Amino acid sequence: MFAIIVSLDVKPENIDEFIAITKYNHENSRKEPGNIRFDLVQSNDDPTKFNLYEVYVNEAALDSHKKTEHYIKWRDTVAPFMNTPRTSVKTTVLAFD
Amino acid sequence: MFAIIVSLDVKPENIDEFIAITKYNHENSRKEPGNIRFDLVQSNDDPTKFNLYEVYVNEAALDSHKKTEHYIKWRDTVAPFMNTPRTSVKTTVLAFD
Repeated sequence: MFAIIVSLDVKPENIDEFIAITKYNHENSRKEPGNIRFDLVQSNDDPTKFNLYEVYVNEAALDSHKKTEHYIKWRDTVAPFMNTPRTSVKTTVLAFD
Repeated sequence: MFAIIVSLDVKPENIDEFIAITKYNHENSRKEPGNIRFDLVQSNDDPTKFNLYEVYVNEAALDSHKKTEHYIKWRDTVAPFMNTPRTSVKTTVLAFD
């Protein structure tokens, strides 16, 4: 099982819009057959910092996700909201339930 | 809902022991009434880098977790396995299912 942890640094003036479009992405991504988790979290210490924790059956399912209409809409909408470029770590899930 | 993302940098010679004791912590933590998720993931690019993604009903449930026997055993066991001190980010869950 594959997981990606995405770190996002959002401009303060775009936080509300960022949350709205990411919830849209969450709702649609969870309908993908290869998606298992798609959590959005916001830092308690700095509300401009967010993470996505996404789990897929395998890395190919992430590749499929990146071809969906909702992902492309999300990617293009949030691009101008970023204060710094987003980063991510690709991982293998060792403990899960 | 509350989540904590923990980043861990493990000495190469302790990876197997780290995974074993963390799976023990995972199994017991998932039995806590306030725990919702307790995933362990390992970086694909650098197998010495791990993350815990833990979700609780609220931050008080994390405080309760830190008083459990399995957490204290894990904390004390992994301390000498760390290459650098572990870090964590406390967050609020905005999208989840």
